[in-house]
Amino acid sequence: MAQKVTTHWKGNLQFESDNPNGKTVLIDTSPEHGGHNSGLGPKAMMLSSLAGCSGLDVVSILDKMKVKISDFRMDCYGDLTDEHPKYYHTVSVEYHFYGEDLDEEKIQKAVNLSVDKYCGVMEMFRRFARVNTETHFHSSK
Amino acid sequence: MAQKVTTHWKGNLQFESDNPNGKTVLIDTSPEHGGHNSGLGPKAMMLSSLAGCSGLDVVSILDKMKVKISDFRMDCYGDLTDEHPKYYHTVSVEYHFYGEDLDEEKIQKAVNLSVDKYCGVMEMFRRFARVNTETHFHSSK
Repeated sequence: MAQKVTTHWKGNLQFESDNPNGKTVLIDTSPEHGGHNSGLGPKAMMLSSLAGCSGLDVVSILDKMKVKISDFRMDCYGDLTDEHPKYYHTVSVEYHFYGEDLDEEKIQKAVNLSVDKYCGVMEMFRRFARVNTETHFHSSK
Repeated sequence: MAQKVTTHWKGNLQFESDNPNGKTVLIDTSPEHGGHNSGLGPKAMMLSSLAGCSGLDVVSILDKMKVKISDFRMDCYGDLTDEHPKYYHTVSVEYHFYGEDLDEEKIQKAVNLSVDKYCGVMEMFRRFARVNTETHFHSSK
């Protein structure tokens, strides 16, 4: 199963990347590195990819389980090495669930299934970083 | 050096992810997996991140070297494993440079510096995938 992404230089330090599903994304860097912040930073994009991949799993599994939530957010933190090439050596993913009388056991099971079994991006991250996950429930009664 | 990315569920299988530089990106999946393709696929996003990170290096280095190019594109191919968790086991990055009388030697040096030394995303990819790189010159005389 192969995926192709084409990324085109748009001048200065801006790039436009074409996702296979037809969407495009702009990439740039900060003024301190010569860019204009006119797009996503490429390393932080990796954290978005991680949250997106796991989030899709969790929402799909909760849907199959008929578990209701009213809101769901993931905060990802990545620590980069000081030396080049700078990569994330430690990453934390905090899953935050909101809703009335949350079924904490089933939600935790959905998170675990993503983390341990389904999330391919999480698996890739485990090869280069120590990955910590936490689940937080914000239940209104 | 820590980075934080917050990713918010927007309903169905859509997520919005906030990059530290203030930009946001939508993430979704294809209709065959229950989504609406209303955002980037999270795994393909990893390939955009790879191209963006290396592309920023290459353009910055060429600028310091005073090497002119008129156009630059990267094609990234990723092969996913068949089994869950599905991760990229093999990745290819093709660098395509266009311009008049391209200084192939210096351009190749810029690519090598990114691949071997500076590109943190490339380093992360090497931990989980076999990464191949190719440079193609499209020089007009």
